[in-house]
Amino acid sequence: MSLQAIYNKQPLVHCITNYVVANFTANGLLAVGASPVMADAIEEVGEMAAQANALLLNMGTLNERTIESMKKAGLSANMHNTPVVLDPVGVGATKFRAETAQQLLDLLKINVIRCNIGEMAALAGVNWASKGVDSGKGDIDVAVTAKQLANNYQCIVIVTGEQDVITDGIRVEFVEGGHEKVTKMTGSGCLLSALCAAVLANSKEPFDDLLTLLNEYKQASANSVATIGNFHTNFLNELENLAGGRK
Amino acid sequence: MSLQAIYNKQPLVHCITNYVVANFTANGLLAVGASPVMADAIEEVGEMAAQANALLLNMGTLNERTIESMKKAGLSANMHNTPVVLDPVGVGATKFRAETAQQLLDLLKINVIRCNIGEMAALAGVNWASKGVDSGKGDIDVAVTAKQLANNYQCIVIVTGEQDVITDGIRVEFVEGGHEKVTKMTGSGCLLSALCAAVLANSKEPFDDLLTLLNEYKQASANSVATIGNFHTNFLNELENLAGGRK
Amino acid sequence: MSLQAIYNKQPLVHCITNYVVANFTANGLLAVGASPVMADAIEEVGEMAAQANALLLNMGTLNERTIESMKKAGLSANMHNTPVVLDPVGVGATKFRAETAQQLLDLLKINVIRCNIGEMAALAGVNWASKGVDSGKGDIDVAVTAKQLANNYQCIVIVTGEQDVITDGIRVEFVEGGHEKVTKMTGSGCLLSALCAAVLANSKEPFDDLLTLLNEYKQASANSVATIGNFHTNFLNELENLAGGRK
Repeated sequence: MSLQAIYNKQPLVHCITNYVVANFTANGLLAVGASPVMADAIEEVGEMAAQANALLLNMGTLNERTIESMKKAGLSANMHNTPVVLDPVGVGATKFRAETAQQLLDLLKINVIRCNIGEMAALAGVNWASKGVDSGKGDIDVAVTAKQLANNYQCIVIVTGEQDVITDGIRVEFVEGGHEKVTKMTGSGCLLSALCAAVLANSKEPFDDLLTLLNEYKQASANSVATIGNFHTNFLNELENLAGGRK
Repeated sequence: MSLQAIYNKQPLVHCITNYVVANFTANGLLAVGASPVMADAIEEVGEMAAQANALLLNMGTLNERTIESMKKAGLSANMHNTPVVLDPVGVGATKFRAETAQQLLDLLKINVIRCNIGEMAALAGVNWASKGVDSGKGDIDVAVTAKQLANNYQCIVIVTGEQDVITDGIRVEFVEGGHEKVTKMTGSGCLLSALCAAVLANSKEPFDDLLTLLNEYKQASANSVATIGNFHTNFLNELENLAGGRK
Repeated sequence: MSLQAIYNKQPLVHCITNYVVANFTANGLLAVGASPVMADAIEEVGEMAAQANALLLNMGTLNERTIESMKKAGLSANMHNTPVVLDPVGVGATKFRAETAQQLLDLLKINVIRCNIGEMAALAGVNWASKGVDSGKGDIDVAVTAKQLANNYQCIVIVTGEQDVITDGIRVEFVEGGHEKVTKMTGSGCLLSALCAAVLANSKEPFDDLLTLLNEYKQASANSVATIGNFHTNFLNELENLAGGRK
């Protein structure tokens, strides 16, 4: 139902994201009826974020120039009460990413942090062995750490993995299902973050609508299972189908 | 026949384009037998444009650095009588894009502007409600405005949408057909602009050859209709087929 | 077996590559079980390369900023005895690329150069008519030139084309097979370079393991033959299959 709500509202989602997944993110948003706009020049991001219905900040291939653009876009979104989603890609991998995430969280009102377990651990200052931008392995109480993070930044935290966790610092829900093959498709987490932004664009009950989205995303990946090339094709098909856009 | 002409001539098309659609653009050009080269460093774009058979300037994810590269590449192309196509992506969305498009049009001899209705309106200074980089909605006589734009810049203007319009300021032709699903595939307009460049690379009758291309592109999208993931696959298949490259 | 070795070891491959093929490269690495990480900010590449199992430097859309990042990442990799693969995309096309490749080869210990014939000719200072980033045409003894290059830089040189050549300056092997259609899929050479990096990450006999990879890559492309849209899908399927990841 969250994907259908996107399809019905067709929100404009301003994405400052990485060049690895920009194409897939745009196609995923289009598949469910949203309008993606990618723009990262400092000269225009304020104006672009001001007219968007939601803003996505994804740190995947950040650099000095785009970090400044993320800040400016975020401030503009905040000023216009436009929801902001932060995807702190690989935040545990380098000091540069850790510092950038901290700066964004300190400067901006972030509505949702969407991350994997390793990224959550890094944001929370908990020990964890990350592996590049992948989740990594370790032993941690995800729900407890996610709640702490949500309380620290007064936002909703979504930690995805074999089991997804969503919390606003008080309520905690878990989402099962899906298929691990989705992790073999680059940008599957990044696209989910973009869809979170699209959901927030028109949501009166963000927590419940995001929870629904997580369930739908798990369903899409479970329905897509195939050899990996076909998985890519199937996944866009499934998103379109769940959005009610298959005609 | 325009796609077949590309296939037979295999033009080298220098693209300065956005990172969202760079992959799809390269694959679309390759599918019809053209040789794409993406290069946007100021230090080399002059040399690269000088050896290319056509140049594409796409403003999708422009920034201060790449704008200078677009100018330098454009001047080099002009000096070598190499055709230049401008795709003013989202020109109506921000002042930065509007100013950049104006600078490029003032500085360079542009052979073809390929845009959607919202972008045309912005270039022509006509009222129109754009939506990010999407076309938007409004009430406007497309043919009249396109002709005016073509006369202003002494170029061919192609405005794509449910009905395509192509004009050189005097002659006007309309192209029907296709399928709206093509708008759910990011970069469909951007790829068309790149194919316009490939057509111009070897054309003695640019207007007629571009008109043929528009018809073939509509045909490819009509033939590709399927669920969205399969649409992507089908579309590349159809381009290859229409180019005579399916063996 | 080289792809299966990647699948078993799941190496972290740090890629500084171009925005045209970043998505395809990431998906190709994921298809065979490797963990790609794309990061090109000067502030973090040293740290990222230090924790990676292999480093790929691809010059496809190089610019002043990313060249400095390639140097810093390369030095970090060298210091940690991490293998480095150089893909000198389009090195014959512009003076800027030629100078950059020379700087990287002078500054860094490169383990493998993976290129096409035109790029090899440019690196070796041999006459050849390149065409943008494509191979071009000419008359040259590939094995002799490749050996010379391998001796000059004390590395393994892989020259791919209708017939692949691999040499360490002494031994020379040739690989036949495959299908020309792979050249119609952008980034097929770039992905191969990334897979070379993944192979090196865990190899005790680099020459033999890379030779095996070349055979497997030819096999994947031969097995993928179809219309071009389906070829893309099939190719990822085949990589996954050869890696033993199809379950």
